[in-house]
Amino acid sequence: MTKDNTQDTTKSAGANALWGGRFSAGPSQLMEDVNASIHFDRRFFAQDIAGSMAHCSMLVAVGIITTDDGDAILEGLQTIQTEIAGGQLNVDPKLEDIHMHVETRLQELVGDVAGRLHTARSRNDQVATDFRLWIRGQIDDLDAGLKALQTALVDKADAHANTVMPGFTHLQVAQPVTFGHHMLAYFEMIERDRGRFQDCRTRLNESPLGSAALAGTSFPIDRIMTADALGFDRPTANSLDAVSDRDFVVEFLSAASLAAIHLSRLADEIVLWSSAQFGFIRLSDQYSTGSSIMPQKRNPDAAELCRAKVGRIIGAQNGLMMVLKGLPLAYSKDMQEDKELTFDAADTLSLCVAVMTGMIADMNVNTKAMAAAASAGHATATDLADWLVRALDIPFREAHHMTGRLVREADAQNCGLKDLALEIFIAVDGRISEEVYSVLSVENSVRSRNSLGGTSPDRVRVAVQSARTRLDKD
Amino acid sequence: MTKDNTQDTTKSAGANALWGGRFSAGPSQLMEDVNASIHFDRRFFAQDIAGSMAHCSMLVAVGIITTDDGDAILEGLQTIQTEIAGGQLNVDPKLEDIHMHVETRLQELVGDVAGRLHTARSRNDQVATDFRLWIRGQIDDLDAGLKALQTALVDKADAHANTVMPGFTHLQVAQPVTFGHHMLAYFEMIERDRGRFQDCRTRLNESPLGSAALAGTSFPIDRIMTADALGFDRPTANSLDAVSDRDFVVEFLSAASLAAIHLSRLADEIVLWSSAQFGFIRLSDQYSTGSSIMPQKRNPDAAELCRAKVGRIIGAQNGLMMVLKGLPLAYSKDMQEDKELTFDAADTLSLCVAVMTGMIADMNVNTKAMAAAASAGHATATDLADWLVRALDIPFREAHHMTGRLVREADAQNCGLKDLALEIFIAVDGRISEEVYSVLSVENSVRSRNSLGGTSPDRVRVAVQSARTRLDKD
Amino acid sequence: MTKDNTQDTTKSAGANALWGGRFSAGPSQLMEDVNASIHFDRRFFAQDIAGSMAHCSMLVAVGIITTDDGDAILEGLQTIQTEIAGGQLNVDPKLEDIHMHVETRLQELVGDVAGRLHTARSRNDQVATDFRLWIRGQIDDLDAGLKALQTALVDKADAHANTVMPGFTHLQVAQPVTFGHHMLAYFEMIERDRGRFQDCRTRLNESPLGSAALAGTSFPIDRIMTADALGFDRPTANSLDAVSDRDFVVEFLSAASLAAIHLSRLADEIVLWSSAQFGFIRLSDQYSTGSSIMPQKRNPDAAELCRAKVGRIIGAQNGLMMVLKGLPLAYSKDMQEDKELTFDAADTLSLCVAVMTGMIADMNVNTKAMAAAASAGHATATDLADWLVRALDIPFREAHHMTGRLVREADAQNCGLKDLALEIFIAVDGRISEEVYSVLSVENSVRSRNSLGGTSPDRVRVAVQSARTRLDKD
Amino acid sequence: MTKDNTQDTTKSAGANALWGGRFSAGPSQLMEDVNASIHFDRRFFAQDIAGSMAHCSMLVAVGIITTDDGDAILEGLQTIQTEIAGGQLNVDPKLEDIHMHVETRLQELVGDVAGRLHTARSRNDQVATDFRLWIRGQIDDLDAGLKALQTALVDKADAHANTVMPGFTHLQVAQPVTFGHHMLAYFEMIERDRGRFQDCRTRLNESPLGSAALAGTSFPIDRIMTADALGFDRPTANSLDAVSDRDFVVEFLSAASLAAIHLSRLADEIVLWSSAQFGFIRLSDQYSTGSSIMPQKRNPDAAELCRAKVGRIIGAQNGLMMVLKGLPLAYSKDMQEDKELTFDAADTLSLCVAVMTGMIADMNVNTKAMAAAASAGHATATDLADWLVRALDIPFREAHHMTGRLVREADAQNCGLKDLALEIFIAVDGRISEEVYSVLSVENSVRSRNSLGGTSPDRVRVAVQSARTRLDKD
Repeated sequence: MTKDNTQDTTKSAGANALWGGRFSAGPSQLMEDVNASIHFDRRFFAQDIAGSMAHCSMLVAVGIITTDDGDAILEGLQTIQTEIAGGQLNVDPKLEDIHMHVETRLQELVGDVAGRLHTARSRNDQVATDFRLWIRGQIDDLDAGLKALQTALVDKADAHANTVMPGFTHLQVAQPVTFGHHMLAYFEMIERDRGRFQDCRTRLNESPLGSAALAGTSFPIDRIMTADALGFDRPTANSLDAVSDRDFVVEFLSAASLAAIHLSRLADEIVLWSSAQFGFIRLSDQYSTGSSIMPQKRNPDAAELCRAKVGRIIGAQNGLMMVLKGLPLAYSKDMQEDKELTFDAADTLSLCVAVMTGMIADMNVNTKAMAAAASAGHATATDLADWLVRALDIPFREAHHMTGRLVREADAQNCGLKDLALEIFIAVDGRISEEVYSVLSVENSVRSRNSLGGTSPDRVRVAVQSARTRLDKD
Repeated sequence: MTKDNTQDTTKSAGANALWGGRFSAGPSQLMEDVNASIHFDRRFFAQDIAGSMAHCSMLVAVGIITTDDGDAILEGLQTIQTEIAGGQLNVDPKLEDIHMHVETRLQELVGDVAGRLHTARSRNDQVATDFRLWIRGQIDDLDAGLKALQTALVDKADAHANTVMPGFTHLQVAQPVTFGHHMLAYFEMIERDRGRFQDCRTRLNESPLGSAALAGTSFPIDRIMTADALGFDRPTANSLDAVSDRDFVVEFLSAASLAAIHLSRLADEIVLWSSAQFGFIRLSDQYSTGSSIMPQKRNPDAAELCRAKVGRIIGAQNGLMMVLKGLPLAYSKDMQEDKELTFDAADTLSLCVAVMTGMIADMNVNTKAMAAAASAGHATATDLADWLVRALDIPFREAHHMTGRLVREADAQNCGLKDLALEIFIAVDGRISEEVYSVLSVENSVRSRNSLGGTSPDRVRVAVQSARTRLDKD
Repeated sequence: MTKDNTQDTTKSAGANALWGGRFSAGPSQLMEDVNASIHFDRRFFAQDIAGSMAHCSMLVAVGIITTDDGDAILEGLQTIQTEIAGGQLNVDPKLEDIHMHVETRLQELVGDVAGRLHTARSRNDQVATDFRLWIRGQIDDLDAGLKALQTALVDKADAHANTVMPGFTHLQVAQPVTFGHHMLAYFEMIERDRGRFQDCRTRLNESPLGSAALAGTSFPIDRIMTADALGFDRPTANSLDAVSDRDFVVEFLSAASLAAIHLSRLADEIVLWSSAQFGFIRLSDQYSTGSSIMPQKRNPDAAELCRAKVGRIIGAQNGLMMVLKGLPLAYSKDMQEDKELTFDAADTLSLCVAVMTGMIADMNVNTKAMAAAASAGHATATDLADWLVRALDIPFREAHHMTGRLVREADAQNCGLKDLALEIFIAVDGRISEEVYSVLSVENSVRSRNSLGGTSPDRVRVAVQSARTRLDKD
Repeated sequence: MTKDNTQDTTKSAGANALWGGRFSAGPSQLMEDVNASIHFDRRFFAQDIAGSMAHCSMLVAVGIITTDDGDAILEGLQTIQTEIAGGQLNVDPKLEDIHMHVETRLQELVGDVAGRLHTARSRNDQVATDFRLWIRGQIDDLDAGLKALQTALVDKADAHANTVMPGFTHLQVAQPVTFGHHMLAYFEMIERDRGRFQDCRTRLNESPLGSAALAGTSFPIDRIMTADALGFDRPTANSLDAVSDRDFVVEFLSAASLAAIHLSRLADEIVLWSSAQFGFIRLSDQYSTGSSIMPQKRNPDAAELCRAKVGRIIGAQNGLMMVLKGLPLAYSKDMQEDKELTFDAADTLSLCVAVMTGMIADMNVNTKAMAAAASAGHATATDLADWLVRALDIPFREAHHMTGRLVREADAQNCGLKDLALEIFIAVDGRISEEVYSVLSVENSVRSRNSLGGTSPDRVRVAVQSARTRLDKD
């Protein structure tokens, strides 16, 4: 063993209380900076204490520690819970993480008996337990937030079941739709998001506690008891997997990424609709900002931020997958990188969902501008083609070509299809009658699209009722 | 309108048959290169034809087209199915995509009646239907592949329920575990992967057919009938959402990414284990390669490729999310970018799963090397600490510090804990007895870790049985 | 060594010619599928042969092989170059990669002397050399493409130095700008892209040839000679690094990602501008498509695809970084995953650049619609505020507030700022005179923004000249 | 305009001081949460004040404001600089960002004259200027850090120019190399990283100041003067581009990602080398941690964290590209998402570079373990093949096959190549002599690899000298 460094590493000051027994020198400041997690994992304090209380009660129940010791520990933990919830946490980076902060404070409060709490467990199963509990809580909170957003969308759809707007494909006016139908498209997306979060919740709801460092333990613990106490459905099946697994985090971030994409799509539409060129909506003052240099601006900053913040959420998901790629079992310190990314992504998504809910609820819809835009661009050309199919009993493809000729004619005359004289229609096919005009208005167009899932006001009203029923059930 | 370009755009040659009615000039070669999808979406031919047959039968059933026309179309579609399955597809980039290839061939086979098939539908709902069917099929295939991998893992676990190896944390020897237990950790990961794919399948199994371009249709179609015919659970609820939605692709790719991460972790371990330094396993010739310049090498190329290919799968997921970010409703051509990424990711994952299955099934385990490594590094130090807790009735933290001192002593003597003389133990605490040696062997150590989900051979055998039962049930 | 598998691995059929000497069984089909790279690395054939010729000439020059042998090999290589360029390459997956295909064909052509070519090199340095040469060529091609795009942008800017359009922030009309200025913003972005590709080219232009497998060689090779022959600036400095390094690929993909982002921003604007709501431009027929169901549509498919394809390029970059993360030195098979991602990204970017160039060159600008939009939305409010600062000698912040009041008044009257009566201005501040109206027209506004880099027609014309000079110099 | 919401939006309390003139209601708390940037952009305070001082001096120089006003503003700014540097910044989220905090404080200090500072500029060019200055500073700091890491690597290489270790490919022992050579491979990687950061610095070093909101300004500003004052090489050329451009951030993050990948590769090797199986190095106590449950562990936490943190850096890069994708010009609020990701990535990389430098400097090299490992696995097989080429004048491919047979023979005898009896060699080819043994020792092997860039101790010593010269020059 060649000694390359000339630093004196024999000084013993600052040896870490938890694992320092064997080390003769303390970690350097740099090491503390890169290693300590207390500045972020303190968010786990409630989960950590809940896990410790469940573990303690179980240790008593199976006789590993005495009732007296158990009571002392439980009381101490209760005190710490109250202290931290009240803002009293003396952060000491030397104590690395929330687990050590709680344990050290427990030692101060109840003395050496505190050391019995760490029997038959390890920080590896502790942190896995804490993180599952935390994400479970986040999912429950997010679900409430997403439901509120759905309610805002349904309310808007209800109020605008009849409001005609242009339906776009390729950002070209394609066919008229109702604004209510458009709002409900997002209801469906959020419904799927909620489903994905629930699936994630179901899958993660297993207790790693008792997996110890990686191999389980020789103490006669009762993992079902701690699982029950913490609201888990069952204990995890394999101790190596339990301490190595961060699937639940990736799955949570994947669901969050998709939800954020949905928000980004709606946000992009809000930005478009708020522009002078579209003029479909006007955001409330609550969700607009002005400009320091251009006093006339009403900037949709909130929508832009909802659109942009998908970046950091997907970045977090991507980053965590990068961390996990190629990691051998079982626990590696790499996995400590799972938390900050997730905290940020979860906070960001929660905020965006709330902001979007407010924007949707508050926004004013310019129904006239929407109707005017829906009438432009020959949006009823498909209606015409469909009418030709029915009236003339011709294949759709033939009707499509005939419609194309009529659109060109209208363009040449700089008018709408409904403004073409009947003889123009007849010139294309002698069988066309006055009746054709009935399908050329946007109101009739949307009314006719009455197929299941279609845009007609009747369908939208049914969909609103169905959505409200679904929301009530949850 | 300023005319900036000097190109003559009045020539009509090459106008696209499908939507060219209105255009006076044909698309340029570049446009064809960037726009055509037939070179990849031809993989959808079976799904596309199945969708068309279901649509056709429904059109007949509800009276939109006649039975005779329907029969002609169905027969034509059947012929095309046979032709393409037999390798006969005349690819013509001018026909852009698989939908147009089928439709054009149908026209050749049955004449103008082919044009009636496109009544009440659009390429937008057609491609959404095709893609859902395709992914559903991929999930079913992947599930079979993943199950085969699980079987290989369980078989290995069964054969090695007793095989002791070092359990690592931080790639440091931590505690002895059994190789069977280690294999079963991956069984659990794959089990979750299968669950995620099933959740994705359940969520995607709704029929977009009949959503038409974006707004539904005025024809009296029966979407439940086509949904049933294609094995979907129900029609989608909102036509705008149905043609804009690629959630199912992202969710599929997210599940694939996580599965690929699991493979990358196992692959990394295989590379480690195959090294001369570990020497835990020897890959079969089937899954090794040699070197052009170093004849002695047995390179774990297959494992390295399984480790690396997670990159392109995650890249595909990331790329598709990038595509969808901020896209306004409804269909945009951007969404055509969903297919190649997904095809490549699905093919890659399937191949990796199969390769990994073969590698696991074929690999030879060097039980002696594993056992030797498990004995090194004071791997039973935790057992000692646990014994001290029980025997001396002291808090774990105190036991931990005592163990630290004994480890340092063993290091100083350059021996294992079990080789320390009893007086050394007694010097640390006078209450330590001969019995301590019983917990210092790796065999006793693994045997003692009998907690639920723990590594003991008994637990592993139970877990193997439980795993086999689960596999049989599917 | 426990033999776990029951497969007979003693059969020797199909042993790989290159490294099979030691293996008693051939690789399975699965292994071939995952391992062979010939289906993609065949793109390297010209680079591979060039590298081999340089290596051969050097081996002769330093006396490692004879002139006769060298001549035979060179002639053989020349033949193979002609064959493959002419489409004659018999692909055999058993031969794995392009290196083996060339070597095997050489053996057929010139006999055993072919085996002398592999003296003092390895596939590790060979593939590193091939890939650098290939990317160098791609950069040169891309540079030409990007320059063509810049030329199209400058031409458009030249033609539209006077064309007034709304400048947007937050997609709200902010201040009038000239369309020429807007085009030149993209000129600047592409200029930076070209710079990044050039920096990448400079950094990668070192020859790994002669690094052999990883450690260099004991043969007295002349690496400077081969570097010169292949147009490299110098040999790489460290053999381990040279075979492990894929920085140049990541850097190329990073530059490509940023270029693709620029294209996506311009593409998004083209989609917006082509909408009925904006109506700023009309794409040529060459770069539009129609709809199968909506005959009136002119879809900006090419722009949408340019916007979307950033996804797969960034996905490729991300995927490759995932591959490289945590890879120990030196060569690992993981690195074979570098090629397909890169080929796809390079092809995609090249195509998008060409398509964008065509779209820009061909597009028709609706100057009237732009001018009308520029006049809306109080776009000259900042001009008013600036005028107040100058005319009344007040701080900008005060002028900003006064302007805000005038904008509100104009909104209340539903008119533009320039339509407000003078008394309205005077009511806000008695010192305001008739002269104020001079700054309220959009034409005067753009003309006044004459600061360096500003939007005034004069500045745009100067910038066009400067851009043309830069383009001529390259 | 339909009024959908029932909220009272007429209350005027809390209207934002900067842009509130036109708004009758204040932004909600949610809006403040999503919109305010002061909690992170406060890091720009020094850059922001420097920019303001340069702008102020220029306004005076060109006569836009008086010397007296200018002096008052400059003095005020100086005071604010001192205050904030001293920790006195009253954060008020209502003031949104650092620009407004400075401006508001300036107003308090010097009165209404403060409002003159915002003449001829906007927050859009202000923040672009601040961010460029900030990244420029980061690059300079990082360059110093990377240079220190290079120095540590060179020192280690110098000390170990003769230390033989196994060179790995596929983590299989391939050929012996020197540890010094291995260290220098990382020197080269870091050298390229520094080059990329310098290229980024050169490209970003243009001043956006004076681009104003997006269009330039009508005030007769002198952008060259402010550019000079702030150390920029020149002003940016296009005002629209200048406020829309975040290329420099993406390029910085791309360079950071690649640097982080290099660290992750070295970190992975450190983890491997620290394992009991490799035993090549022993990390100092400074850079190791223990285990709470396994007292014998010396965990390479610092290396694991350096390996993992590449995830968040690449996640940041990916996230920012996601933000920029498809953004229309000019400034959108989306771009505010550029900062937190970048701050985190920059801080993370800096910390990892410092930690890695410490780890390398401090680590103890077990030269015996390295040498022993290098001798295993027939690492000199290539040397044998090369010798056969030279001695028997046979093609390399033939030599390769002969070597393969000898390796199999050694395996069968369970010995090394150098332990095979001469008759074994002769049995393969009668021309083989005693001399063959000279190439079979690892020491001779490394000594012989004396090609440029090769691993021989002589080459390593030359490379160390060259590296030191390069480091001295910077």
